[in-house]
Amino acid sequence: MNEPRIGEADATSADQPGRGMAADIVEQPEVMSGLLDHGRGDIAAVAARIAECRPRSIVFTARGTSDHAALYAAYLTEIRLGLPASLASPSVVTVYDSRPDWSDCLVIAVSQSGGSPDLAQVIAAARATGALTLAVTNNPSSPLADEAELHLDVRAGQERAVAATKTYTAELLTLLMLIEGIRTGTGRIDTTEAAALAELPELARDVLDDSFAGELAGRYRFAERFVTTGRGYAYPTARETALKLMETSYLPALAFSGADLLHGPLAMTDPGVPVLAVVGSGPGGHAMWNVLAQLGRQRADVVVVGAADLPGQTARLRTPAVDERLAAILDILPLQQLALHLALERGENPDAPRGLKKITETM
Amino acid sequence: MNEPRIGEADATSADQPGRGMAADIVEQPEVMSGLLDHGRGDIAAVAARIAECRPRSIVFTARGTSDHAALYAAYLTEIRLGLPASLASPSVVTVYDSRPDWSDCLVIAVSQSGGSPDLAQVIAAARATGALTLAVTNNPSSPLADEAELHLDVRAGQERAVAATKTYTAELLTLLMLIEGIRTGTGRIDTTEAAALAELPELARDVLDDSFAGELAGRYRFAERFVTTGRGYAYPTARETALKLMETSYLPALAFSGADLLHGPLAMTDPGVPVLAVVGSGPGGHAMWNVLAQLGRQRADVVVVGAADLPGQTARLRTPAVDERLAAILDILPLQQLALHLALERGENPDAPRGLKKITETM
Repeated sequence: MNEPRIGEADATSADQPGRGMAADIVEQPEVMSGLLDHGRGDIAAVAARIAECRPRSIVFTARGTSDHAALYAAYLTEIRLGLPASLASPSVVTVYDSRPDWSDCLVIAVSQSGGSPDLAQVIAAARATGALTLAVTNNPSSPLADEAELHLDVRAGQERAVAATKTYTAELLTLLMLIEGIRTGTGRIDTTEAAALAELPELARDVLDDSFAGELAGRYRFAERFVTTGRGYAYPTARETALKLMETSYLPALAFSGADLLHGPLAMTDPGVPVLAVVGSGPGGHAMWNVLAQLGRQRADVVVVGAADLPGQTARLRTPAVDERLAAILDILPLQQLALHLALERGENPDAPRGLKKITETM
Repeated sequence: MNEPRIGEADATSADQPGRGMAADIVEQPEVMSGLLDHGRGDIAAVAARIAECRPRSIVFTARGTSDHAALYAAYLTEIRLGLPASLASPSVVTVYDSRPDWSDCLVIAVSQSGGSPDLAQVIAAARATGALTLAVTNNPSSPLADEAELHLDVRAGQERAVAATKTYTAELLTLLMLIEGIRTGTGRIDTTEAAALAELPELARDVLDDSFAGELAGRYRFAERFVTTGRGYAYPTARETALKLMETSYLPALAFSGADLLHGPLAMTDPGVPVLAVVGSGPGGHAMWNVLAQLGRQRADVVVVGAADLPGQTARLRTPAVDERLAAILDILPLQQLALHLALERGENPDAPRGLKKITETM
């Protein structure tokens, strides 16, 4: 535990608008390397412990950006582990004072600050019903980390901007490593998967070096709202993108799974509403083709995030053709850049959005 | 089964814009009475069967409006039954070809048409892993009803408008009666609860007779977007309201749980963005007071839906002070009326929104 925590040195030097968020964004490859190199052992130990307990399902609880990381992990749980996954609403415990029977379940709270009292209450209630509990936070000395039986530090270092970026991808990678560790039963990740993970920091660097998101921000300077969409592993990316746009540019952004978009809100995607469509190189991406065809018929302005050009796109934010569960960690990067540059184009300071605090105390 | 199905006679006579949706909305008290009087037996039989099987958790799968009914039922499951509940994404089965272990679970698909192939695939996969399966639909002869081991008809009659209204409240009431039946262990609903349920049709009639939603539509004729919010049982109402506004008026409407609103998107609620806040008379409503105070500081224009006037509100859509799990069935009514009248004010035809079909075939 001797390596310096990322971001500590210049955490308070963000005097220029967006400088803090830009620094957080660009640090992500380094945070990924840190997790892969130094976080691996802790994650494997926790994964081994969980595998030994054989939980019958995994329950996640989280809010805001961390809720999108939890949603991603819920897909991983069902697809990679074949276990039922759910996202529990804290209000069941904190507002209605109910105690669902989570015995034999693993209950995971995800929170960058670890300071939200409602999540700590859910973890306490879960422990009381006999659940195995885990807190995934960016703060090992937080109340949430104390409350849970197990803790994992996402090791992202202090985040400068209020809008979460590096803590999000650090949560995604921590949860992916955890679930792949549970999958083998030993806590260790299998060799092929580990090799794919090892390439992430370099791939992330390549994605961030492409400056196209900055250019694209000019095009959408006067957009009045956005629609974001994706399916499967890409759906959390769509949700997180919408939240980033709302937090930093105060732009209403509606996130839909590709399937839900066809069930009603498609009528809203006229040519005046840009659509950010996350289209992976696997089954989730293929399932988006039908959605893109319909968007084409609506003459929507579509930015594709992915590895291949698609008919009807206005532009593409390039990300590599990797397995969709890895793509979730890379596809968000140019979208964070787009949110940052769009806020700056619009004269906002994405480091300190109005009305937002880093720790939100909800009950 | 001899009583005529509601809405059959004049299903195709909706020549005037909004006439179909208006007729659907106004029929809701009658649909509720029908369910309470004639649906009760079937629901009790299914509830008894489920109680006998003692599922370890309930998994819901649904899309669009029915997904909001499923979300409501997930709250009921955790709060009233103390069982873990989850909303499964069909894509896990249909796109990623995964088979989560749902043995010992009850898997419930909710769909007004029963015609969406992805939900039928999820139910087939669930049966194959040994789950007890139930389809809740408005069409007993649908593929989904055939696929599931158990079926419940929500008995709403044919819906005239594409935007779902009476099928939504019929789904809510069916799921409430089901879960209250499971709760007693016998399938029958306990006497106090049954007495409260028996009052619903009359309360619904009173709410619908108040024409204030129509008046209020004029005020928001030129609103460019909406925020909707609620906590606990009222959160599905906020979600469903947002979808109705999007489907019928093509207005972007963002739904947030009261807690999530404080975590970021609050910055977007400037005085130019009306907020529809569902504030019940129980714990979920009390948990909204803090949210309303913050909205007041943002000088937001807030319409409260509930039984009491609150500081800072612009207006109130009156609904009765009943238990919050019953309020969910009543609070949506004036909001459906608001969506209808707003669409008409804006020159749209809410009966046939552009680009929408009644059955959406997603995989």
